[in-house]
Amino acid sequence: MYKTDLEIAQEATMMKIDEIAKKAGIPVEDIEYYGNYKAKVSLDVLKERKNEEDGKLILVTAINPTKAGEGKSTTTVGLVDAFQKIGKNAMVALREPSLGPVFGLKGGAAGGGYAQVVPMEDINLHFTGDMHAITTCNNLISACLDNHIHQGNVLNIDKDRVVFKRVLDMNDRVLRQVEVGLGPKANGVERKDGFNITVASEVMAVLCLADSLMDLKEKLGNMLVAYNMDGEAVYVKDLEIAGALAMVMKDAIKPNLVQTIENNPVLIHGGPFANIAHGCNSVLATKTCLKLADYVITEAGFGADLGAEKFLDIKCRKANLKPNAVVIVATIRALKQHGNIAYEDLQKENVDAMLEGCCNLKKHIETIQAFGLPYVVAINEFATDTKEEVEALQDWCKTHGHPMALSQVWAKGGAGAVDLAEILVDLVEMENNYKPLYEVEDTIENKILTIAQTCYGAKDVAYSEEAKEQIALFEKNGWDNLPICMAKVPTSLTDDAKICGAPKDFTITIRELRPSLGAGFIVALTGSVMTMPGLPKVPAANRMDIDEEGNIVGLF
Amino acid sequence: MYKTDLEIAQEATMMKIDEIAKKAGIPVEDIEYYGNYKAKVSLDVLKERKNEEDGKLILVTAINPTKAGEGKSTTTVGLVDAFQKIGKNAMVALREPSLGPVFGLKGGAAGGGYAQVVPMEDINLHFTGDMHAITTCNNLISACLDNHIHQGNVLNIDKDRVVFKRVLDMNDRVLRQVEVGLGPKANGVERKDGFNITVASEVMAVLCLADSLMDLKEKLGNMLVAYNMDGEAVYVKDLEIAGALAMVMKDAIKPNLVQTIENNPVLIHGGPFANIAHGCNSVLATKTCLKLADYVITEAGFGADLGAEKFLDIKCRKANLKPNAVVIVATIRALKQHGNIAYEDLQKENVDAMLEGCCNLKKHIETIQAFGLPYVVAINEFATDTKEEVEALQDWCKTHGHPMALSQVWAKGGAGAVDLAEILVDLVEMENNYKPLYEVEDTIENKILTIAQTCYGAKDVAYSEEAKEQIALFEKNGWDNLPICMAKVPTSLTDDAKICGAPKDFTITIRELRPSLGAGFIVALTGSVMTMPGLPKVPAANRMDIDEEGNIVGLF
Repeated sequence: MYKTDLEIAQEATMMKIDEIAKKAGIPVEDIEYYGNYKAKVSLDVLKERKNEEDGKLILVTAINPTKAGEGKSTTTVGLVDAFQKIGKNAMVALREPSLGPVFGLKGGAAGGGYAQVVPMEDINLHFTGDMHAITTCNNLISACLDNHIHQGNVLNIDKDRVVFKRVLDMNDRVLRQVEVGLGPKANGVERKDGFNITVASEVMAVLCLADSLMDLKEKLGNMLVAYNMDGEAVYVKDLEIAGALAMVMKDAIKPNLVQTIENNPVLIHGGPFANIAHGCNSVLATKTCLKLADYVITEAGFGADLGAEKFLDIKCRKANLKPNAVVIVATIRALKQHGNIAYEDLQKENVDAMLEGCCNLKKHIETIQAFGLPYVVAINEFATDTKEEVEALQDWCKTHGHPMALSQVWAKGGAGAVDLAEILVDLVEMENNYKPLYEVEDTIENKILTIAQTCYGAKDVAYSEEAKEQIALFEKNGWDNLPICMAKVPTSLTDDAKICGAPKDFTITIRELRPSLGAGFIVALTGSVMTMPGLPKVPAANRMDIDEEGNIVGLF
Repeated sequence: MYKTDLEIAQEATMMKIDEIAKKAGIPVEDIEYYGNYKAKVSLDVLKERKNEEDGKLILVTAINPTKAGEGKSTTTVGLVDAFQKIGKNAMVALREPSLGPVFGLKGGAAGGGYAQVVPMEDINLHFTGDMHAITTCNNLISACLDNHIHQGNVLNIDKDRVVFKRVLDMNDRVLRQVEVGLGPKANGVERKDGFNITVASEVMAVLCLADSLMDLKEKLGNMLVAYNMDGEAVYVKDLEIAGALAMVMKDAIKPNLVQTIENNPVLIHGGPFANIAHGCNSVLATKTCLKLADYVITEAGFGADLGAEKFLDIKCRKANLKPNAVVIVATIRALKQHGNIAYEDLQKENVDAMLEGCCNLKKHIETIQAFGLPYVVAINEFATDTKEEVEALQDWCKTHGHPMALSQVWAKGGAGAVDLAEILVDLVEMENNYKPLYEVEDTIENKILTIAQTCYGAKDVAYSEEAKEQIALFEKNGWDNLPICMAKVPTSLTDDAKICGAPKDFTITIRELRPSLGAGFIVALTGSVMTMPGLPKVPAANRMDIDEEGNIVGLF
């Protein structure tokens, strides 16, 4: 009945990437081609324009999604097409998809329907190799670290206190906990280890927060890898490989230029997961867009409790970015889920459940208000929504005084978000009082409590014994004056994936804290959140195929 | 005093890759740009020319090298420049470097001095992502395999008889033997596993032997991954992911176009190590060159005992290639090593030791003669060679009737191999009796014995108990009618790295046999050869750096 995302993407008429560059105002000498429809953008674009005024920055966030996602990327992509439709110079900065979910459950992160980024097959596969460069960079550190221990261990590293893990861009549960170095002595030191998925690598966070190649090198050097036998920190720079690592990342640091189906320019760069990392595209891509376009739309992963909080507390603070407005994407089906309807029944009309679920939307609106930012609710229409449901949600917004517009970009492309774009044109001109939620100088516990209470609606925060010891250690080492990167399930405001709506009086449990001293934040792991996903019973890979002419099926 | 390879490469004036394509006769619509100086070449080039006549195929091989390598790639690259200098239309097909050795000991595989392939930094780092695609493809198989066992194990796979390993493109000794799936049940099945380096992946061998994307898919599907509880073979195709794997490889299957520093066209594609894999670039790259050029020069890794034997017994047989001549590269310093001089003393003049070491050259000449091919010895000159040594080697060649020429390409580029090229122009016109050494229908033991006696000078072959059992199993399963891919140390004709010269009456020990049923050969592991290298005490990574402008130092 409906065309698949892949079919729609394959029918798109792409413009050559040099024409897209021209449209974006990027000189052709500042791009490097990766085939006809992808290019790396030189960091010179940003340097040459450093004294020019920035465009307006619009963040797209969402309510807590269902496991299928609520079309935040789709809305983001459709919105740039809508801005162009009303004659505004706009660009979008997005995250890169990870191969793990592509072969696992979800598929890619290139939008959907008629609001997609193309060439979607390439973007969702190896793209321009950034993920692979990160994997290589991360694993070179691990190989050099274990080799150092094997070859005499001059740094006196405690092999049982290595904190830096290997990564693969793959959903591979058996790699979560491994033992390495088994067999004869020539096989190196035997120790417990584990793999994360590449998007959870601190190298990814560093890439996304660096503002130059030299800054990247310095941040990579500052990453904590282990403790020595005296309990002192050992950093990447102690292994004397920061230069080699920066060299490995020399191309990955450059943002990638592609286009929407409607031939508007898009930068895609960096893709940390928002449940286990800070969840935003690179600072360099966002800043490059801000120099090139009057309106820059970007997204932060999952709901406002995860991606938006980290966008506003970590990325904007560190990069000195001033957001101008926020779009909160809501869907009828996710609101019904928050009104306690089971996933299987979300396609059935249920106005009451939807209205009950609006408590979740309300909570995310309050979060954005707490950051002092103007917002608009975007109702992302699905084919299964009924007229009654949509009208009831529109009425709810009106009654409570929330600016609101329909987003029909999945079905109509940019034409489906013209109203939303026009509201935003006004919103971004409003004075706003954007301010991070907490001061970095506050204690680790206070910072986490602030986030948990303000953004989740929690009553308090509990700590495992391990987390308590870690806090004491971080304070002793002077690592406590850093922002917090919360790792939490995305489908709930709580740390329990199954609890929907907007509960109150609950406790958030901090299981473990990890210092990301290169990226410059402390990761707080809540509940049972995993940094290496697994594959489902029937992986998405099983339905994919390609023919001799290179035509792909089943990617989505 | 001397410029480094990297400095020479950085001073080269590269032509834009579309001009190189034009020079090679490749229509611009058949290339995809990867930056200004690299491109993927469409398989259509080969399809469109399938009825045209092939050029002449010249293989470059060598004597057993020192651990520093004897300049086989350098000679190969210089030779194409020399052919162009004498007005002949020539191309070269090379292997892609692996990141493992780049960060480890050796550095890259892009030639040296004034006979290099550029842009060398890119070629030696991520290049166009082929290695990363192979890593992903290989590890997706492992993830799906372990997931299958975890999710109910319908195929009844015996977790203790999984034969397919994970890979990383890294020298990482601690990954040789690991235990995966530790921790709670959700972490999947606990079992012993190990990682190979990516170049040792069967996926690499498949890529290098496939003649189309559909052939690649079929070969990937035929790879053996495990045995079930009844002892029956389980293949990749049983996991129903061959289509996804071929999709992952859709760009990697296309050869990569770059140039020599003298701006002559080069295809670089596929890079299995010749000590542990079949050691030649892809069949697709070789065949594409043969349709485009009158003279095609290609190399096979290490000495004639390893790379050339596998080129002639595996690659040429499977791809129906007819080689026309062989260049055997010898260096004064390696000959001195074969005359029992220590590595540290190779720079000192020693005519007698050099002449004593000529027994090694003689053995490799006999190997090429056994394949029925005309040959020429290329004396690859080093700055440390003395006039007396070079003249003594020239005299040795003349006395024994071996065609010979100096190769001075390291110092002079193409001009340094004009004599060699002119000899080859005549050699390739000779009728030859090329024939593989053995029939695939012969027994596994006979095939191995033929190789060991003919190419190594061994007396006999011993088998471990494990290897004996494997032969019985392969025969029972009908897998014995395949060519043999020998895995052996490169520095010696024997399976002991320290034995130089041309010993006789020695025994080769087969430790293990691995059926590569997708690639279509049986790997025979001799001695203690490793399929995952380790890093040296001070890895090459430690001397590498990059500045803000992207200038790299220490890559070589």
